[in-house]
Amino acid sequence: MLVLVTYDVSTLSSAGQRRLRLASKLCQSYGQRVQNSVFECVVDAAQLTLLKIKLGEIINPDEDSLRIYQLGNHYKNKVEHIGVKPSLDLEGPLIM
Amino acid sequence: MLVLVTYDVSTLSSAGQRRLRLASKLCQSYGQRVQNSVFECVVDAAQLTLLKIKLGEIINPDEDSLRIYQLGNHYKNKVEHIGVKPSLDLEGPLIM
Repeated sequence: MLVLVTYDVSTLSSAGQRRLRLASKLCQSYGQRVQNSVFECVVDAAQLTLLKIKLGEIINPDEDSLRIYQLGNHYKNKVEHIGVKPSLDLEGPLIM
Repeated sequence: MLVLVTYDVSTLSSAGQRRLRLASKLCQSYGQRVQNSVFECVVDAAQLTLLKIKLGEIINPDEDSLRIYQLGNHYKNKVEHIGVKPSLDLEGPLIM
């Protein structure tokens, strides 16, 4: 399923920058960064549980806001993009 | 249906700040701002069409990235929040 992770963290502090970097690295192991603080991850139920646990260990719940949206398996016509940085098709063929 | 609008715009310039303000004001007329650049809007199909047209007029497609995700009508168990700034229930009773 496609899971959207949006992470609002103050990057004015180096600790905030570090948390965003860690969350970005984690999310990118399941998918891609489509905007500065928006990640699209393709996961199954077990991976989603693990992703949530790991994200919970990274964020500072007193300062940061993390939201997770489940878009299900049939998401291709539910996502639209306007402007720069269009995303890859995560499940499409890999052209070398 | 719930529609998620994520808007990545450089706020280093005053023009970028202005576009984010305008997009925020527009999206908040259909819902709420849940993170700095993430908006949840509850709209019907006609409102969604209108929202996209208006957002298209605000953003600069050469600089900004706008993504729109449709979460459907049964979205309450598809959204999770961790950390600060939990969102309101947009369709819940209004307690005065």
